[in-house]
Amino acid sequence: MLVVMRMDASPDQIDGVVRRVESHGLKASPIAGAQRTAVGITGNLGVVEPGLFESLPGVLEVIQVSHPYKLVSREFHAEDTILEVGDVKIGGRDLLIIAGPCSVESYEQTLRIAETVKASGAHLLRGGAFKPRTSPYSFQGLGREGLKILARVREVTGLPVVTEALDIDVLDDVAEVADIVQIGARNMQNYTLLRRAGQCGRPILLKRGMNATVTEWLLAAEYILDQGNEQVILCERGIRTFADHTRSTLDVAAIPAVKQISHLPVIADPSHAAGQRDKVIPLARAAVAVGADGLMVEVHDEPDEALSDGNQALLPGQFVELMEEIRLLASVLDRQVPSQASQRSL
Amino acid sequence: MLVVMRMDASPDQIDGVVRRVESHGLKASPIAGAQRTAVGITGNLGVVEPGLFESLPGVLEVIQVSHPYKLVSREFHAEDTILEVGDVKIGGRDLLIIAGPCSVESYEQTLRIAETVKASGAHLLRGGAFKPRTSPYSFQGLGREGLKILARVREVTGLPVVTEALDIDVLDDVAEVADIVQIGARNMQNYTLLRRAGQCGRPILLKRGMNATVTEWLLAAEYILDQGNEQVILCERGIRTFADHTRSTLDVAAIPAVKQISHLPVIADPSHAAGQRDKVIPLARAAVAVGADGLMVEVHDEPDEALSDGNQALLPGQFVELMEEIRLLASVLDRQVPSQASQRSL
Amino acid sequence: MLVVMRMDASPDQIDGVVRRVESHGLKASPIAGAQRTAVGITGNLGVVEPGLFESLPGVLEVIQVSHPYKLVSREFHAEDTILEVGDVKIGGRDLLIIAGPCSVESYEQTLRIAETVKASGAHLLRGGAFKPRTSPYSFQGLGREGLKILARVREVTGLPVVTEALDIDVLDDVAEVADIVQIGARNMQNYTLLRRAGQCGRPILLKRGMNATVTEWLLAAEYILDQGNEQVILCERGIRTFADHTRSTLDVAAIPAVKQISHLPVIADPSHAAGQRDKVIPLARAAVAVGADGLMVEVHDEPDEALSDGNQALLPGQFVELMEEIRLLASVLDRQVPSQASQRSL
Amino acid sequence: MLVVMRMDASPDQIDGVVRRVESHGLKASPIAGAQRTAVGITGNLGVVEPGLFESLPGVLEVIQVSHPYKLVSREFHAEDTILEVGDVKIGGRDLLIIAGPCSVESYEQTLRIAETVKASGAHLLRGGAFKPRTSPYSFQGLGREGLKILARVREVTGLPVVTEALDIDVLDDVAEVADIVQIGARNMQNYTLLRRAGQCGRPILLKRGMNATVTEWLLAAEYILDQGNEQVILCERGIRTFADHTRSTLDVAAIPAVKQISHLPVIADPSHAAGQRDKVIPLARAAVAVGADGLMVEVHDEPDEALSDGNQALLPGQFVELMEEIRLLASVLDRQVPSQASQRSL
Repeated sequence: MLVVMRMDASPDQIDGVVRRVESHGLKASPIAGAQRTAVGITGNLGVVEPGLFESLPGVLEVIQVSHPYKLVSREFHAEDTILEVGDVKIGGRDLLIIAGPCSVESYEQTLRIAETVKASGAHLLRGGAFKPRTSPYSFQGLGREGLKILARVREVTGLPVVTEALDIDVLDDVAEVADIVQIGARNMQNYTLLRRAGQCGRPILLKRGMNATVTEWLLAAEYILDQGNEQVILCERGIRTFADHTRSTLDVAAIPAVKQISHLPVIADPSHAAGQRDKVIPLARAAVAVGADGLMVEVHDEPDEALSDGNQALLPGQFVELMEEIRLLASVLDRQVPSQASQRSL
Repeated sequence: MLVVMRMDASPDQIDGVVRRVESHGLKASPIAGAQRTAVGITGNLGVVEPGLFESLPGVLEVIQVSHPYKLVSREFHAEDTILEVGDVKIGGRDLLIIAGPCSVESYEQTLRIAETVKASGAHLLRGGAFKPRTSPYSFQGLGREGLKILARVREVTGLPVVTEALDIDVLDDVAEVADIVQIGARNMQNYTLLRRAGQCGRPILLKRGMNATVTEWLLAAEYILDQGNEQVILCERGIRTFADHTRSTLDVAAIPAVKQISHLPVIADPSHAAGQRDKVIPLARAAVAVGADGLMVEVHDEPDEALSDGNQALLPGQFVELMEEIRLLASVLDRQVPSQASQRSL
Repeated sequence: MLVVMRMDASPDQIDGVVRRVESHGLKASPIAGAQRTAVGITGNLGVVEPGLFESLPGVLEVIQVSHPYKLVSREFHAEDTILEVGDVKIGGRDLLIIAGPCSVESYEQTLRIAETVKASGAHLLRGGAFKPRTSPYSFQGLGREGLKILARVREVTGLPVVTEALDIDVLDDVAEVADIVQIGARNMQNYTLLRRAGQCGRPILLKRGMNATVTEWLLAAEYILDQGNEQVILCERGIRTFADHTRSTLDVAAIPAVKQISHLPVIADPSHAAGQRDKVIPLARAAVAVGADGLMVEVHDEPDEALSDGNQALLPGQFVELMEEIRLLASVLDRQVPSQASQRSL
Repeated sequence: MLVVMRMDASPDQIDGVVRRVESHGLKASPIAGAQRTAVGITGNLGVVEPGLFESLPGVLEVIQVSHPYKLVSREFHAEDTILEVGDVKIGGRDLLIIAGPCSVESYEQTLRIAETVKASGAHLLRGGAFKPRTSPYSFQGLGREGLKILARVREVTGLPVVTEALDIDVLDDVAEVADIVQIGARNMQNYTLLRRAGQCGRPILLKRGMNATVTEWLLAAEYILDQGNEQVILCERGIRTFADHTRSTLDVAAIPAVKQISHLPVIADPSHAAGQRDKVIPLARAAVAVGADGLMVEVHDEPDEALSDGNQALLPGQFVELMEEIRLLASVLDRQVPSQASQRSL
């Protein structure tokens, strides 16, 4: 932490800051500049807040230097974390492709789409049983019935399943069925849910909140790791900005930014960012090109009849096209889209 | 809903849209303009999504016209809702003042501050027992112990209590103690929590999420009203923008915007918006002047020792000053800051 | 400037930073913390950019500490600057009210509105002769013809005039007529225009850019002061955010933030922030309550026929109401809305 | 335009809207829905503003339907515009690579970097002679001296030159030297400059303003086309958001969004978006993958000594790497990075 003094701060005021620092068992290092003095603070900063110093006489501002995350950081864990879900490796050279409908609507619909995306090369099936909807009057998902459908579809197709745990009440049921438990963007700072996710024994797909900085996102992941679960996949899905040509603004730069700080894998969800079918493939390409470890995309074979988000779902033919483009990109980016050998053998 | 056709859309393409509309049991009204045609859609629009039409040939864009909220809307309930909490009326001419520490830290601290803010005219005591913290390593609140402290302090001071329910696990315990249950900004789209809040039998203070539009905020309230609980107070607490001189940007215009659409009372939290003590009073004045029905402010008598957010807490002397300024403002805004007759008589 | 080292930075890497600092004639002060070292840099930092150090081995990040503005700052000029335009004082206890149409449309319209707002107590007349319009097909203002109209209306009414200089070509002509020259939000970083404004011999009203931080806004003012013109009035007019219930988000907190750092007066433009007539008065009240030194509002007596921004113009009766509300607010905020003694005597 | 009535609007109020519409020579088409009526308006909407109807009794809101741009739109000009600058084609299958220093600092520096980027395959040289700087105390560019240097370097290297025209005073001089005249992000709504750019006889590179929607950006281009200059290249360079891990947030989705609406070529500037060297290459890849028609990147061989933005400049070796990666990407995206046959033959 650095306390910047006003230009006209008196020696007494600087001393006042030093004394306050030392009274909290910390060390103060005044640095006299040409125009003003700053006081560096070192020691166990976990116990102090900037407010301790901001209101002292002569202080201009307080700058926080230390980064609050630990377990998610490369400074604590230098090597990339590579998760294994079935035969799928997440976070290494392989590009992970998760695809499926926005919502599980019926066994037939889910199975049909699962088979379609599997045939095109997807590694995991996505599908929401519990849906967070802005309006209470929108379709809220099939709930536990949806989980049962996902379990049956996995049995038939061999595709591992990602689905969202909307709250702590359903987390255990979701974790029983899901190969990866998703925490959605709206729940990124639902700390109770994060802690339970850290205890649920499943890999967690943690979406970035629409107004979360990279630091806040990593701290949300830290809640999960802090409970002993290091199996966390981050997912960039767009942030809220003034731009109105897409539903959210896909912040592709967050992907290399996170990978620089953290060892966790990061994938992208171009479907929710785009909000419109025709922007999904370009955004998917951009995410892979920037360095994402995979994609999660929505696919529906009858999007006009979908019960949620139909207009951002790729048609099956478009998903085939996406897979082809991603395989080509992977080939020049020193990555690969693995085939699903094991699942096929089922 | 309005489907806007491209300038070069053919009559067949316009017919295609009309047929699609009618196939969903809706009525289509084509409007031919100088340059392009638009097709108005009427009927029960709850069942259709824009995606139904966006991908049809010749369509330029689809514009949603109808507003999705109902129960919160003045179109359904024209008169201002006025809540009563003890002797306090919320939403009429009276200005509601909620004050207290960010966190309940101990019985002594909470009682001391409660007595201080009561003496200065606050109507309710705030204080967090369960604290949502960005970092897992920050103080997370005293939990149920904090609730007990709040209950004792209310008994002694007669001040009704507002405190946050962080998740559905603690909601019932919070509702047992709290006179008003707070749903925090990070939980504004925690729909399970909203629904339960709609069933808990207590008035709910619903903070605006940092990236929520007014529509999304009102729809979050709609979740609560939809469960039969019409006792909702909205609270503007700042949105996330690029501006870095305050922690959040207090969007004062949201207050008249909400009051125009909705009958629910709206208060403001200048403390979290400011993030710094010296901006709290000016923002409090602005919120009252713009038309807020009250304020929620943080007060601490030893902010440098506070376990959370000490640097945004007003000192007791500053809270006295705030109350004086608000009373003066109220006098010229045709409002009043009621005295706490009944509580004093305890 | 502070260079924060990685936790695993070697002593050699720290030395490397120190040597780089010293090679630029600056002083390096390493501060060893519990987990990492930071290197404070002092001296004439004007000559260095963070990039000098960011790419050195072992560096985690570089934090800029010093504030780049000087002349606008209270550290260089502690007392409030008070401008005098005719008999109007700007920046002291007096609240300045600028009112008038968005655009000068004709002599009759401008005179009529000028007389109306003068009768209600406005101190200056606003009115655009040169209009920045998003679309090339919108009305662009009467240009120099508009300036002549403003000059005639000033002669008749005695009201000093504020009007925008859209570019350096028209600046001199504007400065000849205008009592205060406005630099609009879109031109806040038009540095050539700012420099010329600093040489034009007139007070400058500098609107905040829609994406400008307070620091950038103050640096734009610094361009003007740096040319010897200390007569600058800042004007908050709303920033661009995701919020869609007003045209821009009036950032009221920017007003006390600027006044804390700078000695310059700050007013607010609630009309452009609101974008709708019915939000203008509440926002005007908020701006005055937060501490603005005045208001600039749009008034039109036939807003439906206005050639620009008619829907945000107050009707004359609403302006009377605004003035009454502001006078009442001023009375409890230790400010006053001065009467226009001198102009009336014309 | 669509006027949406309140649910409780009376038939008289609907009639009132219809009469107002017709009094302006427009046609009104009321559409009665289940809950409310909307009135479609057709005719020459250029003459009316929403405010005409917003304040009428019974009106809930007014929605603008028509798009204000024309010449930039695919509805007016369906085929991609392909510019030719020397032998370089911009906007077709070819990917355009513009590279060079942020600022022209000296003849030697500019020549050295120009030769370096040419050797690696750049098609045009960038380099600022006039620099827009946030602080008046930062290096402002060499001015006309810088233009002379660019002219000499072009003569020697054969590389066409892009450089910024900061204001209308220097536009003609810039246009005399530059093969492409750049309008910077801060000037995107400097309409006088845009109009003159439309008359200057040179292709224009128009950067997106940091707070500009796609519509506003296209309307800025419309100002240029409206003056008869159809040679416009758009450049996405990042928008301002709350995200703080890059200087601006590169809005890659804007590229396909613009290309869908407009026939103009769109390139990306990953250097200004990133603000840090190590994010430039990933963002460049993302921009090309999303569909950009080219890149503009900053390269410096002594970035630590650069007079501006040194920390975002690629080193020459990194630029080689970038070119290799872009060539590989082009090969799988059905695009190509053309070699500079003609220039080499000089």
